[in-house]
Amino acid sequence: MEAGLFTANNVWMMICTGLVFFMHLGFSLLEIGLTREKNTINILFKNVFIICVGLLMYYIGGFNLMYPGFAEGSAGILDFAGFGIAPPENGMTPEYADGGYTWWTDFLFQGMFAATAATIVSGAVAERVKLGAFMIFTIIYVGIVYPIAGSWQWGGGFLSTMSYGTAEGFYDFAGSTLVHSVGGWAALIAIYLLGARIGKFNEHGKPRAIPGHNIPFAAAGVLILWLGWFGFNGGSVLSADPATTSLVLVTTSLAAAAGGVSCFIVSTICYKNYDLTMFLNGILGGLVGITAGADQMSPNDAVFIGVIAGAVIVGGVALVDKLKLDDPVGAVAVHLICGIWGTLAVGIFGSLAGFDQFLVQLAGVGIVGAFCSICAFIILGILKATIGLRVSEKEELEGLDRHEHGMDAYPDFGLNEH
Amino acid sequence: MEAGLFTANNVWMMICTGLVFFMHLGFSLLEIGLTREKNTINILFKNVFIICVGLLMYYIGGFNLMYPGFAEGSAGILDFAGFGIAPPENGMTPEYADGGYTWWTDFLFQGMFAATAATIVSGAVAERVKLGAFMIFTIIYVGIVYPIAGSWQWGGGFLSTMSYGTAEGFYDFAGSTLVHSVGGWAALIAIYLLGARIGKFNEHGKPRAIPGHNIPFAAAGVLILWLGWFGFNGGSVLSADPATTSLVLVTTSLAAAAGGVSCFIVSTICYKNYDLTMFLNGILGGLVGITAGADQMSPNDAVFIGVIAGAVIVGGVALVDKLKLDDPVGAVAVHLICGIWGTLAVGIFGSLAGFDQFLVQLAGVGIVGAFCSICAFIILGILKATIGLRVSEKEELEGLDRHEHGMDAYPDFGLNEH
Amino acid sequence: MEAGLFTANNVWMMICTGLVFFMHLGFSLLEIGLTREKNTINILFKNVFIICVGLLMYYIGGFNLMYPGFAEGSAGILDFAGFGIAPPENGMTPEYADGGYTWWTDFLFQGMFAATAATIVSGAVAERVKLGAFMIFTIIYVGIVYPIAGSWQWGGGFLSTMSYGTAEGFYDFAGSTLVHSVGGWAALIAIYLLGARIGKFNEHGKPRAIPGHNIPFAAAGVLILWLGWFGFNGGSVLSADPATTSLVLVTTSLAAAAGGVSCFIVSTICYKNYDLTMFLNGILGGLVGITAGADQMSPNDAVFIGVIAGAVIVGGVALVDKLKLDDPVGAVAVHLICGIWGTLAVGIFGSLAGFDQFLVQLAGVGIVGAFCSICAFIILGILKATIGLRVSEKEELEGLDRHEHGMDAYPDFGLNEH
Repeated sequence: MEAGLFTANNVWMMICTGLVFFMHLGFSLLEIGLTREKNTINILFKNVFIICVGLLMYYIGGFNLMYPGFAEGSAGILDFAGFGIAPPENGMTPEYADGGYTWWTDFLFQGMFAATAATIVSGAVAERVKLGAFMIFTIIYVGIVYPIAGSWQWGGGFLSTMSYGTAEGFYDFAGSTLVHSVGGWAALIAIYLLGARIGKFNEHGKPRAIPGHNIPFAAAGVLILWLGWFGFNGGSVLSADPATTSLVLVTTSLAAAAGGVSCFIVSTICYKNYDLTMFLNGILGGLVGITAGADQMSPNDAVFIGVIAGAVIVGGVALVDKLKLDDPVGAVAVHLICGIWGTLAVGIFGSLAGFDQFLVQLAGVGIVGAFCSICAFIILGILKATIGLRVSEKEELEGLDRHEHGMDAYPDFGLNEH
Repeated sequence: MEAGLFTANNVWMMICTGLVFFMHLGFSLLEIGLTREKNTINILFKNVFIICVGLLMYYIGGFNLMYPGFAEGSAGILDFAGFGIAPPENGMTPEYADGGYTWWTDFLFQGMFAATAATIVSGAVAERVKLGAFMIFTIIYVGIVYPIAGSWQWGGGFLSTMSYGTAEGFYDFAGSTLVHSVGGWAALIAIYLLGARIGKFNEHGKPRAIPGHNIPFAAAGVLILWLGWFGFNGGSVLSADPATTSLVLVTTSLAAAAGGVSCFIVSTICYKNYDLTMFLNGILGGLVGITAGADQMSPNDAVFIGVIAGAVIVGGVALVDKLKLDDPVGAVAVHLICGIWGTLAVGIFGSLAGFDQFLVQLAGVGIVGAFCSICAFIILGILKATIGLRVSEKEELEGLDRHEHGMDAYPDFGLNEH
Repeated sequence: MEAGLFTANNVWMMICTGLVFFMHLGFSLLEIGLTREKNTINILFKNVFIICVGLLMYYIGGFNLMYPGFAEGSAGILDFAGFGIAPPENGMTPEYADGGYTWWTDFLFQGMFAATAATIVSGAVAERVKLGAFMIFTIIYVGIVYPIAGSWQWGGGFLSTMSYGTAEGFYDFAGSTLVHSVGGWAALIAIYLLGARIGKFNEHGKPRAIPGHNIPFAAAGVLILWLGWFGFNGGSVLSADPATTSLVLVTTSLAAAAGGVSCFIVSTICYKNYDLTMFLNGILGGLVGITAGADQMSPNDAVFIGVIAGAVIVGGVALVDKLKLDDPVGAVAVHLICGIWGTLAVGIFGSLAGFDQFLVQLAGVGIVGAFCSICAFIILGILKATIGLRVSEKEELEGLDRHEHGMDAYPDFGLNEH
C-alpha cells in the first residue's frame, strides 16, 4: 500500500477519534442543560470521571477483552508486562487492519467509544444517584460488560456470524445496538431500580415536567454531538475510503435533519407547542437510528429512518412517562428505543434489507438486550443492596452539588447587582 | 490519480464540511449572546430549524438547481426517482471534480454552505419576527433563491464568464457575495420591513443600545466561527492542495486578527471604551472581507483587507443606526457591508487586481444584490401582507420564548439561593 | 515524495493548527469560569486580544526570530518588503521540511503556539491587572521573548545541541518548557509583582477560596483543551507519520486521564471532597506533563507521568497558597510546575531516560526559567513603575468590566422574572 493512502487513512481515523472524544462535551452540556442547577457539578463530575476512567479501563483490559485476537502476545484481560497493552509486531504498519489505521489509533478510537455507553446511563440517573455507586458501576460496565458485548460482533464473535437464511450475520455498523442500546438498557434498569425524582409524579401518578436550567447548553450539546457523529459513524468505516466515508456523512446528516424536523412536527401536532427540546431529541434520535446502517443506506433511506426515529422519540418519551419511569434527559427514548429502531431498520431499508436479516437483527437486539439488562440488574442490584444507589431525601432536595462536592456550579453568579 | 492523493483530498473536504457545520453553533451562540434572555429559545429554535431544513431542501432540490449539469440523469429541481438526488456514474471516483472529493462530499459541503445564508438573516430579525413566517421564508430562500444566485457563479453561470477588458469573469472565492451578501441583503430588507424592536429608538429617534444577555456565549460563538472559517475558506479550494489551502488559512486568520485589532482601535478612539463586542465584530468583518479573495491575496494584502474591514464595521454599525434600522447582532455591517468590501477588494488587492476587475466585481455585487433584495422583498412582503411578519406587542414585551414555545431558556436558574 | 503523502501530511498539520487555535476558546472558558462574574468581559477581551495580536506579532517578526534560517531572503526580525514574511523558494513543495507541511502551514501552526504562552499569564493575573499594561506586556512577551526562547531549541539553537555525556541535547517535544513554562514563569513573576486580590488572604494571612462564577464553562474549557492538545502534541510530530502521531495521541490522552483520576483521588484524600476543579486541573496537569516527551514515552510511562502530575497539582496549588501568591486559575501549578515535571520526566521515563539526560533537562529548565523570569521581571517591573500594573481598589471591588469596558457580561440576565 502506498504511504500516502495509509497516512491519509490514519489521519481520518485520528480526527474521528478526536470527534468521538468531543462528543463527551456534547453529552455533558446536554445533560446539565436539561437538569437542575443544583446538580450541575455532580453531572459534570460523573462525565469527566467516565471519560478518564473509561479510557484507563479500556487500556488496562477492555481493548484486549473486546478484540481478543488482535494484540499479539497479550494474555486475556490483563497483559502483565506491567499493565496495559502493547501493539502486535505489525501494528504500526499498513499490514495491520488493511492499512486503515495503526494499532494505537485503533485502541484510542475504540476507547473513546467505550466511555460513551456509560455516559448514556449518566444522564438517565441524574439528580438522584449516589456518586460512589455510579463510579463503581461505570468501572465494571465500561471495563467488562461493554467489551464483552462488543466482542460478540466487532471482535468477530457469534453475533457477527449468526446467519439465518439469506442473512449473513447480525449487522451493526457503528453501534445502534452495541453502544447506544448497551447504554440504554442499563439506563432503563437503573431508572427502574432508582425510582423517580421527588416531585416527578404527583399523588395521582401524573408526570410533571421538571425543567432543566440551561437550554442553550442543551442545544450546544446536541450540535456538538451531531459534529461528533461525523467521527462516530465516519470513523466506523475504519479507513478513509472516499466513497464510503462521504456516503456515511451524508446519511448521518440527513437522518439527523429528518429526525429533528419529524420530531418537531409530530410533537407540535401532539402538544401545540414549538418544543425546542423535542426538536433536539429528534436530531439525536435520527443520529442513533442511522448508526446501525449508515453505510448500507441510500440517502433516501436515511431520510425515512430519520423521519420514523423522530416520531418514535415522541412516543418513546410518552411511554417512559406512562411507565412511571423518570428519565431526565430522555436517554431511554433516544438511545434505547431509537437504537432498537435503527438496528431493525437494517432489515427493512438499504442494501441488506430482507425478512431473514430482519429476524437476525431482532435476535441480536434481544441477545444484547438480555445480556446487558441482566448484567446491569446484577451490578446495580448489588450496589443497591449494599452501599445504596440513591442519595438521601435531604440531599436530593438541596442538591447533590453541595452535599457531594461542597460547591455550587455558579457560585458567584448574580451576586453583583445588574 | 494515486489513491492516497484522492483520499487525502476527500478527507480534507469532509473535515471542512464538519467545520462549516460547526459554524452553526457559532452563529447560534453569537446570536443568543447578543440578544435578550427572553428570546433565547426562539433564536435557538430558528437556528436548529435552518440547519435541518436547509440541508433537506438542498437535498431535495437545491444542489441540482445550483449545479445544473453535475448530477447525471437528474431532471431539474427534483429528481423524482422518489425524491432527492443520486450521484453521477463517476461521482465517487477520482475522475469526478479532478479527484478533489466525491460527489457526496460535494453535496454535503455545499449543503452546509446553503444554510448559512438564512442564519445571517436569523440574527438580524431576532426578538420580533414571527416564527412561522421566518420558517416559510427560510424554506424558500435557502431552497430556491440561494442556489439560483450561486448557480450564476459556482454553477458555471453568467457571472463566472462576465468578462470586461482584462477581467476574466466575476471572482468570489468562497462567498463574500454569494453567501454573506446573499444573507445580508435579505437581512437588510427584513429589518426594514419588520421595523425596530420596541425601545430601540426613543421618541427623538435616537438609538439606544439593547444589551444582550450572555457575552461569553457571543465570544465563544466568534471563536467557533473563526475555526469554522478554516473549513469555509479552506474547503473552497475544493481539494487539499497544500500550497493553496495553507495560504488560504493564513490569509483567513491574518484578516480575522487584523479586523479585530483594527475595529478595537477605531472603536476605542470613537467611543473611548474597550468594547469587546466591537472587537468580536471586527474579527467577523475581517473573515467576511477576506472570503472573496482568500486564495488570491498575499498575507500582507490580507492584513490590509482586514484592517479596512475592521474600520468599515465601526462605520457600518453607526450607519445602520442612523438609518433607523434595528439589527440586534450587526449582521448587515458584518455580512452585507464587509461582504461587499471583500468582493470589491479582489479588484484592488492581490493577483487579480485591476480596474477592469474592480468594475466586474462591482457589477457582480450589484446584480446579486438586486436579485436578492427583490426576491427577499417579494417573499417577505407577501408574508407581511398575509400571515404577518411581526409578533404582537405583548408577545414582544414578554418574550417570544413563552409565547411561541411555552418555555424559558433558563427555567430553573437562580431558583436556589446561592 | 508522492503527492498523496505530502498532501496527507499537510492536511494533518492544518487540522492540528485549527485545534491549537481552538485551545484559545478552551483557555477563555476555563479562565472566566474560575473567576468572578464582574471581570468576565475583561478576561475575554484579554484572550481575544492575545490571539489576534499574538498572530500578527508572529507574522511581523516572531516567526523569523524563532526560526532564523528558514525564511530565505528575510532580514532578521522584520522583512521590510513592506512588512511580514515571505516563503522561501521551495517553501510550498515537498522539499520543505521533509514534506511534512508547507511553509505557510508551518507559520500558522507555530503562530498559534506563540499566543498560548501569553494566555497562560492572562489567567494568573486575572481580576486585578490593568488592561493597558497587560496588552503591552503581551506584545513584547509574545513578539520577542517567546520566539527567542523557542529559537534556542526549535530553531536549532544551543539548547538543542547542549549535550552532556550520553545525552544528545535538551529534549522538549511540544513545549512543556518552551511553551508552558515560558508562560508559567511570567505568570509567577506577574502574580508576585501584582499582589493578591483583595480578600484572598485574611488578616492572619490565611488563604480564602474565591469561587468562580461558572463551573460548566470551566469544565467545557478543559474538555476543549484536551481536544486541542490532540493538535498541540499531535502536530508537533511535524508530519502525519502514522506510527508516531497515533502513539502521541495515546500517550497524551492516557496522561490526561491518569492526571485527572490521580488528582481527584489525592485531593479527595486530602480534603474529603469530590472537587471537580481539582479533577479538571489534574487533567491539565497530565497534559502539560506529557507534552515534553509525548513521542518518547510508552503508554505505561504516560500513565505514570500523568499520575505524578495529578499529585503534583494538589501540592502545587497548596504551595502557591502557602507562598501568599494568588493565582485564580491555578496557572502556576498547571503550567509551570507540571511543565517542569514533564521536562524532567524525559530524563526518567521513556526512550531517552538516563541520568545525563536528566541533568540536561534540568539545565534547560533552569536556563529557560532564568531567561523568562528576568525578562518578565524587567518588562512588568518597568510597567509597574510607569503606568502601573494594578487597577484601583474601587475598580477591583466593583469589577473591571464596568470600569474598563463599560458593560456587563450578562447585562440582561435575570431581568425577567422566572
